[in-house]
Amino acid sequence: MGGRQDAHIYLKIVELLKTKGHVFTEHVADATHDDIKLGLTPRQIWDRDMKWLYDSDLIVAEVTVVSLGVGYELGVAEKLGKRVICMYRKGTEKKLSNMIRGNSKFKILEYNDLDSGLKALEKEL
Amino acid sequence: MGGRQDAHIYLKIVELLKTKGHVFTEHVADATHDDIKLGLTPRQIWDRDMKWLYDSDLIVAEVTVVSLGVGYELGVAEKLGKRVICMYRKGTEKKLSNMIRGNSKFKILEYNDLDSGLKALEKEL
Repeated sequence: MGGRQDAHIYLKIVELLKTKGHVFTEHVADATHDDIKLGLTPRQIWDRDMKWLYDSDLIVAEVTVVSLGVGYELGVAEKLGKRVICMYRKGTEKKLSNMIRGNSKFKILEYNDLDSGLKALEKEL
Repeated sequence: MGGRQDAHIYLKIVELLKTKGHVFTEHVADATHDDIKLGLTPRQIWDRDMKWLYDSDLIVAEVTVVSLGVGYELGVAEKLGKRVICMYRKGTEKKLSNMIRGNSKFKILEYNDLDSGLKALEKEL
């Protein structure tokens, strides 16, 4: 989840995921959160996020807002054999990368509105 | 390389790389290129790009324009043990992801102008 402007969407996804298990990355749902301002170095952020990735059973990525870091984590997750679900909101100007859409190892949930997106996600959990 | 608006920069990088070896992804330097319009499916594009990645000795990624697909390929490249160089142009509004900046496995070349970027890249080749 790379776009702070979509934080309200990430919050709803995090809330749903928390009913099913532990969520490592709750802070993505907080539009004001800034790791660097909190004093973390890029290396510390990378270390922490990689540890979360290794410790996760399931990666749920909201990929509508384009993010280099999310893409990187998805590539690592695939190679670690993690289960990956990518959520993508239809009707946005930026089309979904073929590296995600063409990837048979990822489950892609395209949704029109948040409610239907959450329903589709819940079915997968 | 994910941004067609930077195609002229990618062209110069591709030209430099071609003096040192084979470049699989020359088409990124062509702003008019569109795999989908050429009739490829997302799955075919993923298959082709992954084959290129596996067959590469060195991945040079220009990461100034944010791209989910480039991020994904960088994560895969890292896990395949590939040598990765990321080029990033300073002074753009979007800061470089901590998943790249904080990653000790990637060599990051930050540059002010294309000439100095190309010189820094040539030193690494």
